[in-house]
Amino acid sequence: MQPDLLRVAQRVEDVARVDYPFVSHLVLDLVRAGGKRLRPLVLLLAARAYEPDPEGLITAAAGVELLHTASLVHDDTVDRAALRRGKPTLNAVLSSGAVILLGDYLFAQSAILAAATNNPRVVGIFASALGDMCDGQLREMFYAHQLDQSRDDYEKRIYGKTAALFAGSAEMGALIGNAPEPHVRALRAYGSDIGMAFQIVDDVLDLREGEEQTGKPAGQDLRQGTVTLPTMLYAAQLAAESPEARRLEAIIGGDNDDEADITALIADVRTSGALDTALDVATGYAERAKVNAAIVPDPETRGMLEQLADLAWNRQT
Amino acid sequence: MQPDLLRVAQRVEDVARVDYPFVSHLVLDLVRAGGKRLRPLVLLLAARAYEPDPEGLITAAAGVELLHTASLVHDDTVDRAALRRGKPTLNAVLSSGAVILLGDYLFAQSAILAAATNNPRVVGIFASALGDMCDGQLREMFYAHQLDQSRDDYEKRIYGKTAALFAGSAEMGALIGNAPEPHVRALRAYGSDIGMAFQIVDDVLDLREGEEQTGKPAGQDLRQGTVTLPTMLYAAQLAAESPEARRLEAIIGGDNDDEADITALIADVRTSGALDTALDVATGYAERAKVNAAIVPDPETRGMLEQLADLAWNRQT
Repeated sequence: MQPDLLRVAQRVEDVARVDYPFVSHLVLDLVRAGGKRLRPLVLLLAARAYEPDPEGLITAAAGVELLHTASLVHDDTVDRAALRRGKPTLNAVLSSGAVILLGDYLFAQSAILAAATNNPRVVGIFASALGDMCDGQLREMFYAHQLDQSRDDYEKRIYGKTAALFAGSAEMGALIGNAPEPHVRALRAYGSDIGMAFQIVDDVLDLREGEEQTGKPAGQDLRQGTVTLPTMLYAAQLAAESPEARRLEAIIGGDNDDEADITALIADVRTSGALDTALDVATGYAERAKVNAAIVPDPETRGMLEQLADLAWNRQT
Repeated sequence: MQPDLLRVAQRVEDVARVDYPFVSHLVLDLVRAGGKRLRPLVLLLAARAYEPDPEGLITAAAGVELLHTASLVHDDTVDRAALRRGKPTLNAVLSSGAVILLGDYLFAQSAILAAATNNPRVVGIFASALGDMCDGQLREMFYAHQLDQSRDDYEKRIYGKTAALFAGSAEMGALIGNAPEPHVRALRAYGSDIGMAFQIVDDVLDLREGEEQTGKPAGQDLRQGTVTLPTMLYAAQLAAESPEARRLEAIIGGDNDDEADITALIADVRTSGALDTALDVATGYAERAKVNAAIVPDPETRGMLEQLADLAWNRQT
């Protein structure tokens, strides 16, 4: 996939070139820093066993990568994050107004790429993935600081935040590959499941790893009042009104930002088994993804899809 | 057009219904407050003389109105505006993070509407109008506080900021109406020209009218360092290094925010004739729009297009 991924990266760079003073190199740095480029990879893999139009494929893959980048730009502004991909965020060096407009600009360029596929179904999937992503982010914001959330609330939230674009990427790839309809559906489900697995593992890593591994102190989600699966599993073990339950409530509620208490809470979550249980849930999603990948006729492509599903749960960063 | 515009307003309300605590009524208030709904009107008028699919037409018209609303939400955040359409902006009552995400959500819903037309050309026009709008806003931001701009810089900027979506709306309407290709082109040009006229008149009103008329003190553009056509025309009359030239330079440059100086500058612009000259430029655009509207076969529709062109330059708010 490497040559195709390089073409995608090149296309993303081409459309991210902006012509305004001060910011052109910032935007270029941002897209060049890349990331794992998982979404275009899923899109390319979903098409690989079929007969895709190569041009449409690269265009759509660049579109999903740019959509993801645009969403990161806005998320970093919302979260006031200072670092992303090991570099200062746009947010750290520009006014929030400039970052909002640059994020919008990248959204627009991603929409232009989606439209350039000239495939109404692809465009529809792209637009609804964008809608789901916004829904996921809004849920994260408006349900922050509330410990009493159901597993269903959590799943809806991370589906929107992460899995929707993985699902859409796989579906777009399969469609551009002219895969038979049952294959399109199975690959969409594959994408959704690995997206869920990736996000759950992200939520585990946020608690399991420290600054050396992820570049951020452990427990960012706790600090922001975002309730994730490991936190939910840990909370379910606590007796009502116990000191541990009250501490968790206060930290998630934003009423306690004492570093010692947060560190103690993280240590308790780590020893509670909640991280392993959450990883098991992620592994379950990855396994289901592999079952869906079994529909793909070409064994080499199938193997790559399986590898990616394993990477979703078995990783350190 | 009234029944169709009401259907558009209803469709916009339907998709703007959000399901998050606190904000659902804010978003609904925002879209209900409406505005002049000029963009959907242009879209509907451009289709009126032909044979549009009514469903696709309402969907696309709701899409452009919602895209415009989404852009206002982000612009108000960028400008830190407190009022819009006579009500507090979202920005005045929510965190900037929430407003960014709600604006993104409205963008997403508008893209979903555009995609639902199932017409690749309509989607392409929609996406590039969005791209041009972002470009216009970024130009306004990154070229703020610079007096040495050409007329061409100004025109590019207001084309992106305003005319691109008018042009796109007219083009989408004509396409959905299955108008012949030369009609599609002429109607696109019509939309672009009335968009230019509307924006130039906005720029004149910003200097000509005070708080009673527009709800904002006169000279907001000067205060924000935005160089508009009347300011350019006034600047062209001043001798280099004259006290008036230095005052203008300092105010646009953001180095002088003295109210008395700003008031004196506005008074000088008003008596300089620059406002009338700028209005003449707007009228020129409106006249050219009417020439393009002449291609429309149905006299009633043509009359409505001409009326709208006149409204673009001949209005108080």
